[in-house]
Amino acid sequence: MQSVYVDGLGMTKFGKDPRPLTEIFRQAAQEALAASKAQEVDAIYIGVMNPEEFTGESNIASQIADALGLTGIPSLRIETASSAGAAAIQAGFQSIASGYYRRVLILGGEKMTHLSTSATTRILAEVIDKQERQCGATMPGLAAMITEKYRQKFRLSQSRLENMLCSVALKNHLNGSRNPLAQFQKAITREVYLTSKLVATPLRLYDCSPITDGAAALVRTSEKTDVHLSGIGQGTGPLSLRERDTFTSFPATRIAADRAYRMAEASPQAIDFAEVHDAFTPFEIITTEDLGFFPPGKGGDAAIEGKTAAEGPLPINPSGGLKSRGHPVGASGLAQVVEVAKRLRGQLPSKRQFKRGLTQSTGGLGTNNFVTILELADTPKIQNPGKLSPVPTAGQKKAISPRSVADEGEIETFTILYVTPDGFLPPLALALIRTRDGRLLMAQGEDNEHLKIGREVYLRRMDDFYLFTVKSQFQKVQESLKKRRRRKAAPSPKKEDSMDSKV
Amino acid sequence: MQSVYVDGLGMTKFGKDPRPLTEIFRQAAQEALAASKAQEVDAIYIGVMNPEEFTGESNIASQIADALGLTGIPSLRIETASSAGAAAIQAGFQSIASGYYRRVLILGGEKMTHLSTSATTRILAEVIDKQERQCGATMPGLAAMITEKYRQKFRLSQSRLENMLCSVALKNHLNGSRNPLAQFQKAITREVYLTSKLVATPLRLYDCSPITDGAAALVRTSEKTDVHLSGIGQGTGPLSLRERDTFTSFPATRIAADRAYRMAEASPQAIDFAEVHDAFTPFEIITTEDLGFFPPGKGGDAAIEGKTAAEGPLPINPSGGLKSRGHPVGASGLAQVVEVAKRLRGQLPSKRQFKRGLTQSTGGLGTNNFVTILELADTPKIQNPGKLSPVPTAGQKKAISPRSVADEGEIETFTILYVTPDGFLPPLALALIRTRDGRLLMAQGEDNEHLKIGREVYLRRMDDFYLFTVKSQFQKVQESLKKRRRRKAAPSPKKEDSMDSKV
Repeated sequence: MQSVYVDGLGMTKFGKDPRPLTEIFRQAAQEALAASKAQEVDAIYIGVMNPEEFTGESNIASQIADALGLTGIPSLRIETASSAGAAAIQAGFQSIASGYYRRVLILGGEKMTHLSTSATTRILAEVIDKQERQCGATMPGLAAMITEKYRQKFRLSQSRLENMLCSVALKNHLNGSRNPLAQFQKAITREVYLTSKLVATPLRLYDCSPITDGAAALVRTSEKTDVHLSGIGQGTGPLSLRERDTFTSFPATRIAADRAYRMAEASPQAIDFAEVHDAFTPFEIITTEDLGFFPPGKGGDAAIEGKTAAEGPLPINPSGGLKSRGHPVGASGLAQVVEVAKRLRGQLPSKRQFKRGLTQSTGGLGTNNFVTILELADTPKIQNPGKLSPVPTAGQKKAISPRSVADEGEIETFTILYVTPDGFLPPLALALIRTRDGRLLMAQGEDNEHLKIGREVYLRRMDDFYLFTVKSQFQKVQESLKKRRRRKAAPSPKKEDSMDSKV
Repeated sequence: MQSVYVDGLGMTKFGKDPRPLTEIFRQAAQEALAASKAQEVDAIYIGVMNPEEFTGESNIASQIADALGLTGIPSLRIETASSAGAAAIQAGFQSIASGYYRRVLILGGEKMTHLSTSATTRILAEVIDKQERQCGATMPGLAAMITEKYRQKFRLSQSRLENMLCSVALKNHLNGSRNPLAQFQKAITREVYLTSKLVATPLRLYDCSPITDGAAALVRTSEKTDVHLSGIGQGTGPLSLRERDTFTSFPATRIAADRAYRMAEASPQAIDFAEVHDAFTPFEIITTEDLGFFPPGKGGDAAIEGKTAAEGPLPINPSGGLKSRGHPVGASGLAQVVEVAKRLRGQLPSKRQFKRGLTQSTGGLGTNNFVTILELADTPKIQNPGKLSPVPTAGQKKAISPRSVADEGEIETFTILYVTPDGFLPPLALALIRTRDGRLLMAQGEDNEHLKIGREVYLRRMDDFYLFTVKSQFQKVQESLKKRRRRKAAPSPKKEDSMDSKV
């Protein structure tokens, strides 16, 4: 395979940008071309998630070639939801690795802030499973349910979890305060975090990345430069929560990381710093575990202990991350790579010289993820890269049949949404319910009381979704009495009975 | 570069398909996998144009990996408007040529028929330039204006042009009548063509491809099979009509063809048959000229003379083309390749053994085009591939300033729209006007009388667009009298005057 290097870089100031999308792209592209050894490129690869709905624009690849004055040159749009910028890197990488092109311009961008928050939330929610959306689920809502499951699995108290999430938010805002291109350039205090409004329990406003406009650009080349793209990998995961084997890890990240580490002949121990997809603070914690930086359940402790701070042994999101730099969905996966390349080149203020950086980008609810490894050219490989944790096998998926469902079950995880999509009134309780026959389904709570993982519930089927009610102590006693009575009354089952039950 | 071969193929019956988009994709994918040497693939590349607006679906790459039971495996969506299926081939090709993947599944599809024609027309029209859209321009409208320009440039009578277009429509419907997967499986007569309704002069209903659901699939591999992908190329062209140097050729096709021919070490003379993007019958004619099959202005004669018939020396669209097979926008570019591979393999009824086939796919109004060449493995290269016509240089674009515009000009080309977008009443006259300062702009006619290329017009600026009125004979006489009077009255210009005019 032809080696692939990074040449010129470009990025707009993230935040609210009044210019049309093509103009935002143009600024980033021109910066990257101007900073490159040669201004000519063979093709343009563009990551953008949904200009069709965000700005009413279609045929964006031709539009951008036109806007850049590069009409004639091949131009493609690549999309994998919120990791589209990373997907463009992957496709652009292959175009050079194959020898088909020598220099390509990679772009990632999105324009979102001109729409209302509810319109943006609706468009973003289209990436999640339809049945879960019909219940009122949103991206923050599902992220919250994953977080609650994480808390229960690793036996964390409410305040310990809060402390972990807060540590990530404070760290990333502090890092963003030093990044002149970040949307939020101010550090926040613990008090600001703790008094910010709840979006979906246990997630607060400061746990969620903002709505942002922006674009990033990078020239990729087969000619040797100072920064080498040494590893890249992609993986997918199940769309719906109810088809997942695990809620506290993203298999898509682990598949992508495994490929990227193997290609780069590197391991988690070889990585000096990383930019990861902290669309929600808990995702940064889970991702640092999936990447093998910390053992499962320990990513939050690392944040609390300052291990992932900009000055710590393994800086995570030194740029401020999606949380503070902002999250123009199609741009983020590429913006991470631009940040890492700048840091390796020593173009960002830091006392340390880094040699090898990693980026991780998440599409949808962890359904289409990428990992990229960049290193200073001629960095020696580490001798014993260490063992990677086993990676989930691709192609496995639990079969679900939405038709046959028991009328009882227990809470697998839950959240209370305080910011709801149009047509749903807050506060809205949502839970993933494990039914008696072992299936998972998403349901809306009839009220918000007594929610806890493991609680037994009754289920009621509505037109498009299920409603659940937590069983009261009284109901449980009643039921157990009923069962005891039935057991006494019923004769022992005969062979004919069991034959019948098969019919 | 690693050689790339075609393995299993799949395609749904094109037309109205009641199933969800993911199900349509699944059928095509399963057929292609079942027909392949091995059922495993390393990644999925999906061409689809606008599921966001056609079916309200986002994150389609993850959705499809999930629907195929291939969760875990990398999955990307590629988009270049109506050539998205071909774009997926290009990206998938590079992934194997680089050695990064060994086997990939390429998919292309779209679901459109569940929407009203006006909704579909609106979504499709988003691919064209915004200013031209604001005038009421649609894809058929702009295609019609290109056709009128073609007629004038090559000095064709109305009836000669009609004969050319009719020949293409009749040929493609006849071919479609033999294709069990085509949307329209019936031949049409000249009378049916001539009495079909006008969509945009001079184009009739039977000059336009239909609205279609469908998907195609192909497994691409580095392992040798009987069909070799020997050449592939892409090119872009200006978005708007008013920035074009030529209206009767698509530079994007010529750039793409040049690359594909060079890569395959082939020339137009080496091609046995082709599937080209006949979204409108005149586009087939123009494309056969851009591909070098016939000289400029002669593509229509070739159709009339039967040279491009299924039994002719150079069959064009033996499958029925977009016109008769149908045009699910994201599927078409891939469906062409599936058709060519099947024909090379002798899986379609034909008396001849073909060795080398070509496909050409068009994105938008000729703004993002692809050419692919497939051949039977071990087909000897031709000795003197002949000379290719010079290809337009990429990166050139005329500067336009929409602000400064004269108030007079002449008609560069025009059409009368009989099927208009929402908010515009038919019949609607549209014209590309060349203003006195040499710029081009799109304008709406105040009436539909006296339209002809070269006619002088007055221009009036409205909020979003321009209105034009053709000057009457009387007005022209008045003007020339006025000018003569002015010339007599005015003194000869002094140096100061010319200095002034520079200010």
